[in-house]
Amino acid sequence: MESQASMAPTPRALPYYVAFSQLLGLTVVAMTGAWLGQYRGGIAWESALQFNVHPLCMVIGLVFLQGDALLVYRVFRNEAKRTTKILHGLLHVFAFIIALVGLVAVFDYHRKKGYPDLYSLHSWCGILVFVLYLVQWLVGFSFFLFPGASFSLRIRYRPQHVFFGAAIFLLSVGTALLGLKEALLFKLGTEYSMFEPEGVLANVLGLLLAGFAVAVLYILTRSDWKRPPQAEEQALSMDFKTLTEGDSPSSQ
Amino acid sequence: MESQASMAPTPRALPYYVAFSQLLGLTVVAMTGAWLGQYRGGIAWESALQFNVHPLCMVIGLVFLQGDALLVYRVFRNEAKRTTKILHGLLHVFAFIIALVGLVAVFDYHRKKGYPDLYSLHSWCGILVFVLYLVQWLVGFSFFLFPGASFSLRIRYRPQHVFFGAAIFLLSVGTALLGLKEALLFKLGTEYSMFEPEGVLANVLGLLLAGFAVAVLYILTRSDWKRPPQAEEQALSMDFKTLTEGDSPSSQ
Repeated sequence: MESQASMAPTPRALPYYVAFSQLLGLTVVAMTGAWLGQYRGGIAWESALQFNVHPLCMVIGLVFLQGDALLVYRVFRNEAKRTTKILHGLLHVFAFIIALVGLVAVFDYHRKKGYPDLYSLHSWCGILVFVLYLVQWLVGFSFFLFPGASFSLRIRYRPQHVFFGAAIFLLSVGTALLGLKEALLFKLGTEYSMFEPEGVLANVLGLLLAGFAVAVLYILTRSDWKRPPQAEEQALSMDFKTLTEGDSPSSQ
Repeated sequence: MESQASMAPTPRALPYYVAFSQLLGLTVVAMTGAWLGQYRGGIAWESALQFNVHPLCMVIGLVFLQGDALLVYRVFRNEAKRTTKILHGLLHVFAFIIALVGLVAVFDYHRKKGYPDLYSLHSWCGILVFVLYLVQWLVGFSFFLFPGASFSLRIRYRPQHVFFGAAIFLLSVGTALLGLKEALLFKLGTEYSMFEPEGVLANVLGLLLAGFAVAVLYILTRSDWKRPPQAEEQALSMDFKTLTEGDSPSSQ
């Protein structure tokens, strides 16, 4: 049981930054929906509109939900570590399932239309993101949730997990920007240069996507906003430090 | 004068990671040159080849040199802080001048051909990067190199400078990827889907660009690879700590 006294105060500005990131993220999702509805005929599985499932699922899964999964430890600061871990893992599972639907949609659409697969930079980056995302999840699960990994292994792996999590998220956003650009150039062609409303809307969507990535990254990397270790973790960490006192951090 | 004893040892793995990042960065520059030479007729200012000055300058300036400027504090670990700062600032000046040439090239080319400017997501991101880069440099210069900013102001601004430096670098790489994609789709059109050699080469170049960004970011963010404060800085920092002991880090 946690006592009130052991709760660390939430940094004053953090909730505003989190709210701003959510506003950006939801605007990105809504604007993707509006773009597909207004200029691309909407969404359906059993028709030529099946393609449109792809961008919407990817933006919801691999941009919005993935970004939010990274923020879980900044938002839930005083809940038990295990609860927060499970939420972090679950959000990534939802993101992965939604992205999988988006991936199946585009391959199925290509198959029905007889279009070739995996020739563009967008698709290469996309497949890379997808594989890395799955590997990162499996390795993260086996280190942090599956019992067995030692405390010292977890401590060593954690910074790598955080770095590659952020890198995969950024690569996801970059891939989304490439896909958006591809969709614009395929359909608009030279009309893109005439400031067509669809082109302008999609450009704004692109900037907002980049803005969401920056907001998430800012919250994630501010050192004074990191989740403070709880009493039980501190005790464990002290034990660990005592056990490995011979190792100085500069020796690795 | 620095004594040998005050020098902190360089982390063992750091030089290999730096070497790897340089290998990636130089490969990116060489491959951009090879792409433009092999498939786009090479480079010249006074002809239709003027456009090709743009991608080459941007990759050298806003990708390779900007990335290397970020790594200066990881590579030069025991030089005087001021020398390292000047090198960091100078590398950014070179990057900016080269990028300016690339920017003038594309606007001049558009003007001669009667093409419209600034309609695409690539161009919007590019202008944003350019403005942010200049602002970041001017603010950085006035805080860290121009005498006048107090030690406490520097301490407060430093994390923001580092974060936005990394964010602008990532946005530069993202913009380069968008530009590469644009150049491919404009020229290759549907041939892109036939795995034309130019398309495959450019896709590999795109992945290497992303790889360079990840390598720089990894070196930059590893906490045990940060430049250790030198004796004189530690003394200053202690003075500052004593002066502001009332401020706890969690109170902001």
